[in-house]
This record gives sequence, structure tokens and C-alpha cells, in this order.
Amino acid sequence: MTATTDTPRRLQIEEVASELFRERGYAATSVRDIAQALNLQGGSLYAHMASKEDVLWSIVCRAADRFNTEVGPIAAEASSPPVDRLRAMIRAHVGVVTSIQQDAAVFLHEWRFLSAARRAEMSARRDSYDALFRAVIAAGTAAGAFRDVDPRLTSMAILSALNGIPTWYSPDGPLTAGEVADQHADLFVHALETNPLETHA
Amino acid sequence: MTATTDTPRRLQIEEVASELFRERGYAATSVRDIAQALNLQGGSLYAHMASKEDVLWSIVCRAADRFNTEVGPIAAEASSPPVDRLRAMIRAHVGVVTSIQQDAAVFLHEWRFLSAARRAEMSARRDSYDALFRAVIAAGTAAGAFRDVDPRLTSMAILSALNGIPTWYSPDGPLTAGEVADQHADLFVHALETNPLETHA
Repeated sequence: MTATTDTPRRLQIEEVASELFRERGYAATSVRDIAQALNLQGGSLYAHMASKEDVLWSIVCRAADRFNTEVGPIAAEASSPPVDRLRAMIRAHVGVVTSIQQDAAVFLHEWRFLSAARRAEMSARRDSYDALFRAVIAAGTAAGAFRDVDPRLTSMAILSALNGIPTWYSPDGPLTAGEVADQHADLFVHALETNPLETHA
Repeated sequence: MTATTDTPRRLQIEEVASELFRERGYAATSVRDIAQALNLQGGSLYAHMASKEDVLWSIVCRAADRFNTEVGPIAAEASSPPVDRLRAMIRAHVGVVTSIQQDAAVFLHEWRFLSAARRAEMSARRDSYDALFRAVIAAGTAAGAFRDVDPRLTSMAILSALNGIPTWYSPDGPLTAGEVADQHADLFVHALETNPLETHA
């Protein structure tokens, strides 16, 4: 049986599952828990999903797609200076983690519970995404706009900082999502920009 | 029955449990899994531990103690300039995450599975620890050494970056733990230091 993946019921299941996965963790959430949260019998869910992992996979893929859709085109603007590109990429990434906060948290923390083959596929997708950040950092250094840093370590530092946002950001908190995005962009652009005095030392 | 918490057997249980918690997640690890990894009967473990959560609590507390022991005294050196203090705090924090990488990962990712009371206690301890970073950032801004940034957002960005290190750092990789520490310290000091040109603008 092939479960359909884009019906309103399926999307409702994914939304409830995402909430439970985030709250309790994927491993500690059962199909029965998902059914109960929807006031359904566990068995009736299987008309809409092949397995619990199948639902996790949908959530994780949709989040990964969203990051690529928002950040990919900015990273590809080769004519834009690296400092502008990095700033816009950070803003776009923060835009995703703050707008789909729950799915982003599941994507970031629960993806490791995928089966080996899917985990390998997602690991490769994540690495291609991280490579967009490594490339813009390396381009900035090559252009003399950024200090000579390790692009891998630096991209991991930036992405770890941005991916930590769902753990502390609240839409009801003192900062808007736009302010959070701007302040992270400022922080890392300052971290990387060459100091005009140092370049003449 | 009170389980003893510092016998060689108990420490061995915690080490094996930490490995399993990190690999599979706390929720997906059973007491039976821990016993099997030690070639013991599940029941015999209870002479050494009150519950699975009890073992998680020991691992989490030991990691939290380690961060406080290494970073706390540096943060308290009020006579040291904020830029030097922040640099040394970042180096010390990275020293902990790279030297007890497995326990640090369990501390950072599995602590949310603690019971409500213990989770509240650890949440308060974590907040006191984060406050050390907020304070040195605010002190740097007050002294004119750091830009005028939001200390909370900035400390979360720094700690999220540093706490991401166990997910990608390998002792067999191209960078030593000391290099990882230095490069993170450089990155965030650059991110915060006031630009000598800007301060005269």
C-alpha cells in the first residue's frame, strides 16, 4: 500500500507528529500517541502513512527543501559581493528557523533517528547545503573582504549558532524574527570582515 | 534502597549508558540495553542505579560541574579585561566539549528527558552558566571594547556555536582541540570588538 503524502489529513498528521516529536523526541513518540492526539484509532492512521519513520522523513525533507529554496538562490548570485551574500544567506536561514520553528527543530534534532539509508541521503543533502556557506566564506577570503579563516570550522560555527535559535527564540519575546536575523548577520559579518587597519599593517 | 554513585561499577555503567544515550538517544535506550552492553542481567544493574533517569542525571550533573569548574573562575576574574576574559572562557568551554565530547553531547541533547523537577533544576543551572557569558559581553560593551550588542542573543549565538562542536569535531580530524578553541575565540572576539576606525567616526 502506498500512503498518499499530500492530503489534508496527511498534513494534519505531520503537524501533530512534528509537535510530539519536538516535545518528547521521535523515539519516545508512538503511532498510538499520534493517533490519540488526533482522536483516531492507531490502525486508521496507516491509511495515511506507511510508518512513523515515513512521517519523520516527510517533515525532514520539507524542512530541508525550505532551506534550499530560501538560501540556494542567494548563494548562487555570484555577482553579489561575498559580504552581501553571506549577510543575505544568514538572514534567509534565520527566516526559515523562525518561521517553521517546530519543523526546523525536528529536522535538526530528530533526523538522526532516520533509517541508515535515509540518514545517509539527508546527511549528503545537509553537507551540500553547508557547502554553500563554506563557499561564500572562501570567496570572501579570496576577495580580501574576509579574514583568512577555516571555511569548514567557520561555517559550522555560523550554522550551529543559527540552528540554536529554535531552542531559545520565542515569537512573543522581545526581539522580532527580523531583529534576530539582522543581529546574527551583523555578528558574523563583523567576525569575518578584514579590519581596515590590519590590512595596512 | 540507595544506589551508590561513585563505585567503579557505577562509573562503568554511566560510561556505557552515556555511549548508548548519545548513539540512540535516551528515550530509545532501555536498562536492558545498558545491561547487555555490560554483559549483565538487567536486574543486577539496580544494585548500582535507582533508575535509568538516575544515570542520566549523574552524567548531566558531572558535565555541568565540569563547565562550571573550568569556566567559572575565569569569568570571576573581574580585574581581567573583558576581551581577555571572553577569549579564555570560550577556550575553556571548547576544552570541555572536546575533552568529554560524549558526555557533553548527552548533557546538551538528552537533558530535556529528565523529570520535570530535575529539568527545572538543570535549566536554572544552565541559565546561571549562560549568565557568565552575558555578563562579560555587557562588561565589554560598558568598557567600550565591544560593540553595543544584545548580550542575551550574543551569548546564545556563542554558546550554540560552541555546543555544536561535539556534532562535527573529531580528535582524528585536521584540527586539534586547541586550534578549534583558538579559532572560535578569534571569531567571536572579532565579532564583538569595536572597530578602531568606527569608534572615531
